[in-house]
Amino acid sequence: MKAFIKDIFKHQQDYMGKTVQLSGWIRTLRDNKNFGFIELNDGSFFKSIQVVFDSALPNYNEIAKLGVGASINVEGELVESPGSKQPFELKASVVVLEGAAPSDYPLQKKRHTYEYLRTIAHLRPRTNTFSAVFRVRSLASYAIHKFFNEKNFVYVHTPIITASDCEGAGEMFLVTTLDMNKLPQTKEGAIDFKEDFFGKMANLTVSGQLSAETYAMAFGNVYTFGPTFRAENSNTARHAAEFWMIEPEIAFSDLKDDMKLAEDMLKFVVKYVMDNASEELEFFNNFVDKTLIDRLTNIIESKFEHVTYTQAVELLLKADVKFDYPVKWGIDLQTEHERYLTEQVYKKPVFVTDYPKEIKAFYMRLNDDQKTVAAMDLLLPGVGELMGGSQREERLDILLERMKELGLNEEDYWWYLDLRRFGGTKHAGFGMGFERCVMYLTGMTNIRDVIPFPRTVNNAEF
Amino acid sequence: MKAFIKDIFKHQQDYMGKTVQLSGWIRTLRDNKNFGFIELNDGSFFKSIQVVFDSALPNYNEIAKLGVGASINVEGELVESPGSKQPFELKASVVVLEGAAPSDYPLQKKRHTYEYLRTIAHLRPRTNTFSAVFRVRSLASYAIHKFFNEKNFVYVHTPIITASDCEGAGEMFLVTTLDMNKLPQTKEGAIDFKEDFFGKMANLTVSGQLSAETYAMAFGNVYTFGPTFRAENSNTARHAAEFWMIEPEIAFSDLKDDMKLAEDMLKFVVKYVMDNASEELEFFNNFVDKTLIDRLTNIIESKFEHVTYTQAVELLLKADVKFDYPVKWGIDLQTEHERYLTEQVYKKPVFVTDYPKEIKAFYMRLNDDQKTVAAMDLLLPGVGELMGGSQREERLDILLERMKELGLNEEDYWWYLDLRRFGGTKHAGFGMGFERCVMYLTGMTNIRDVIPFPRTVNNAEF
Repeated sequence: MKAFIKDIFKHQQDYMGKTVQLSGWIRTLRDNKNFGFIELNDGSFFKSIQVVFDSALPNYNEIAKLGVGASINVEGELVESPGSKQPFELKASVVVLEGAAPSDYPLQKKRHTYEYLRTIAHLRPRTNTFSAVFRVRSLASYAIHKFFNEKNFVYVHTPIITASDCEGAGEMFLVTTLDMNKLPQTKEGAIDFKEDFFGKMANLTVSGQLSAETYAMAFGNVYTFGPTFRAENSNTARHAAEFWMIEPEIAFSDLKDDMKLAEDMLKFVVKYVMDNASEELEFFNNFVDKTLIDRLTNIIESKFEHVTYTQAVELLLKADVKFDYPVKWGIDLQTEHERYLTEQVYKKPVFVTDYPKEIKAFYMRLNDDQKTVAAMDLLLPGVGELMGGSQREERLDILLERMKELGLNEEDYWWYLDLRRFGGTKHAGFGMGFERCVMYLTGMTNIRDVIPFPRTVNNAEF
Repeated sequence: MKAFIKDIFKHQQDYMGKTVQLSGWIRTLRDNKNFGFIELNDGSFFKSIQVVFDSALPNYNEIAKLGVGASINVEGELVESPGSKQPFELKASVVVLEGAAPSDYPLQKKRHTYEYLRTIAHLRPRTNTFSAVFRVRSLASYAIHKFFNEKNFVYVHTPIITASDCEGAGEMFLVTTLDMNKLPQTKEGAIDFKEDFFGKMANLTVSGQLSAETYAMAFGNVYTFGPTFRAENSNTARHAAEFWMIEPEIAFSDLKDDMKLAEDMLKFVVKYVMDNASEELEFFNNFVDKTLIDRLTNIIESKFEHVTYTQAVELLLKADVKFDYPVKWGIDLQTEHERYLTEQVYKKPVFVTDYPKEIKAFYMRLNDDQKTVAAMDLLLPGVGELMGGSQREERLDILLERMKELGLNEEDYWWYLDLRRFGGTKHAGFGMGFERCVMYLTGMTNIRDVIPFPRTVNNAEF
C-alpha cells in the first residue's frame, strides 16, 4: 500500500509486516558493497525512515551510486530493525529512481551556514533545520485560524493595496502602473496619480486594523491574518519588508478582554505546536536553543503578569542595572528595558499597560488621567515585545481632538469616524507579527530564516 | 450570564429561563407605546433575537426612540415567545445604550442596491446579505485550511513582492520606493532600479505557484493561500486587481491525482459551508439565487466527469447551438462553450483535460502526442471555470525546449530549473481563485460584493 512516512511513525502497527510503497528523497546513502542503507525523507514528517536494500535488487549498482537529494520510489516490507537507532526499517524489494541529484547538488551532507542557505532558499526546506522551521510555521498558522474559528471569530481579508493615507505607521511602498519613463503631470507639475491604475496614489498596507474595526462593528469578533509591508531601510535580524500579521478586533470589549484574548491565543498556539511538532521542537531544543522547551512550557503554565507603564518605569529606575538607554517617564521602552522586566523581575510573560499617549497611536483610548492611553504590549522572556494592542477610542469628540493634535486630516478618515457616529461600541484589538511568533516557537534568531523567501533591503531574490 | 446570540440559538435549553446579558446592534425597533420589540443582532449569528421591553424600564422613553443601527447592552430573561416567528425572546429588565445611530445612519430599514452598498463598504457587513457573504467567506477560508491540514499539507506563505520576471501571467503592479519626482537614471537613460528598495525592479505577485513548487520538492504536499494581483484594465463583474488564491502543489503525483485533490477539496469546502452556514445559504437561496442549494448539493453528490479538450471540441462542433465564438480545435474555450459542456451535456462538474500546448503555460507537462499538455480546467454548472491546474513538466530538456520556443530567459528561472536538476519528481497542482469560489457558494454575481474592500480600476476606496 502507498504510505507516507508520518503514517508509519504514527501508526506503526498498521504497517508492520506489510508491503509498503514510499516516495521520497535520499537524505543519506551508505553502500556496503552487497547491501546498503538509505535514510529516506518524504517531507510528510520530520524524521526519515531507514530503507535497507541489497544486491538482490536487479538495479543494485545504480541505486548504490545515487547521491544525496535524489528522489526515489521504494517498495518493501516494513520490518523490525535490528539496529537500535530506529524501531523499524523498510526492507526494499524494488527501488526506482525518480530524479537524480548529481554531485553539484548544493546540499551535500555537511553543515551549511544559515547565510549560505539563504542563497539557496529554494532548496533549504530540504534540510532538517528549515524543514522544522517551515512545518512549525505552517502549524502555528493553522493553530491561529483554529483558535479564532472555535471562538466564532470572522476572518476578514483586509485590503493589501490601500489608497487611504490613514494608516501612518512607518514608510510605505508605492504601487503603480504608471509608465516611469513618461510620468503624467498635473498643471502644477506634480505627478498626476489620477492617471494611475486606481485613479489615486496607492500603497501597500502596513496594518489591517482600521479595516478590521469596520468588520468588528458588524460581526462583533473578527481577525485578519495577512501580509503587511514596511519600506523601512533597516537591515536588522528582526525586520523584513514583507511579513504576516494577525490582528483581532473585538467589539463590546475593553483592554482587559483584549489581554485575556492575547494570552489565550498565545497559549493555544504554543500548545498546538508542542502537541503537533514535538519532533521539530526537540530538534530545535537540541541544536538551536537549549532553553526552548522550557520557555514554551513556561508560557503555557504561567498566568501572565500585568504592570502599568508607570509602575514599570519605577521598577526600571530602581533596578540595579546600567541601561544603555536612560529611563524616565515618557520614554518608549527599549528592548533592554523590556527584557529586564520580563526576564529579571517577573520571569514570565508580562503585559505592560497604559503608556503615555505621546508615544502611542491616535486611535488608542485616552485614560481618565488624560496622560496615558489604554494600550498594552506583551513582553516575553527571551525576546521582548511580541504583541501590541489597545482599547480603541470610541468617543468621537475625543478621537477628533487627538487627530487635531496630531495634524491628521479628518476627511481621510471619514469611514473610520463613521464607526463612532453610527452604533459605535467599546472595542479593542491587538497585532502580532507572525514571524516574531515563529522565531519564538523555534528559537531562530533571524527573521530571514523563518520566511520562505524573505524580502529585505536590496533583497527580493526568488 | 454573558452570551452570544449564536449560543442561544444553538443551545437554547442552556439559556431558557435564565438571565442573559447580550450586546449588539438594533436591526429593527417597534414601539407600541407601553412596550416594544427590538430585533437585536450581535454579529455572532445570521439570525437576530427578539428583545421585548416595556414601560417598566426606567429609561423606556429613551430606548423606544433609538434608531436602527444603535448598539445596546441588554439584560433579561430568555423566555418562550408567544409569537410564532421565533421560538424564544429576551424579556429585557435592563437596556443600556452603548452607541447611538442618528437618523442620518445610511442603513435605514429599506432595500439598498448593491451598487449603493459598495459606496459604504465599511457599513455593508451590517446588512443581512453582506453579513451572510462575509461569514461564508470566512467559513470557506477556514474549510480550505482545515482540508489541507487534515491531509498533512504544509501551508507556505509565498512572497507577495517578487523581483523575478518569471511568472509572466498578465500585467503586474510595480512596487517602488523611488522618488517619482527625481527618478534615478542609468547612463543609458533608463530608470535605475538599482537605487530602488530591493536593488531591482519589483512587482506584486500574480501567482505563488513557482515558489510553491520549490516547497513541494521538500515537503511533498504543500499549498499557498494568499493575495495575488493583476493590473488588468478590465472592468468586469469577475475581475479584481487584488484577490486571494489557493494553490496546492503535490509531489510524486500526476494529473489524475491533481483532479482527485481538486474534487475532494471542493466537496469538502461546499459541505463545510453547508454544515456551518445553513442559515446564510437558506437566505441566499431565497433572495439571491433560487438554484443555490440544488447546485451545491449537486456538487457534493456528483462524481465529477472527465473529458479531454479534443473530445470537448467534438461535442461542441456537434452541438445544436449557435455559439458567438466559433469552435475549432486550438481555440481557448469561452464561457459559452464551458457552460454548454457542464450545463447541457453533463449537468454536473466536469474536468476538461489535455489542452493544446499553444494556449497553456510553459510549465505544463507535454503529452506524448507532442501537441497537448497535461492541463485541466474544472467547469461547474452556473459559472463555468472555477479552477485550472496541470501536471508540471519535470523533464529538464523538454522544459528548456518549451522555454526557448516561448522566448523565456533561462537565467531568470535558475532556481525553478534547479528543481528539475536536483531530485525532481513528477508533480502537479492547481489554482483556485477564492473569490470565484465564494461567488459560487453564495450566488453573488459581482466579485466586488464578495471582497470586503474591493480594488478595481479607478477604485481603491477605504
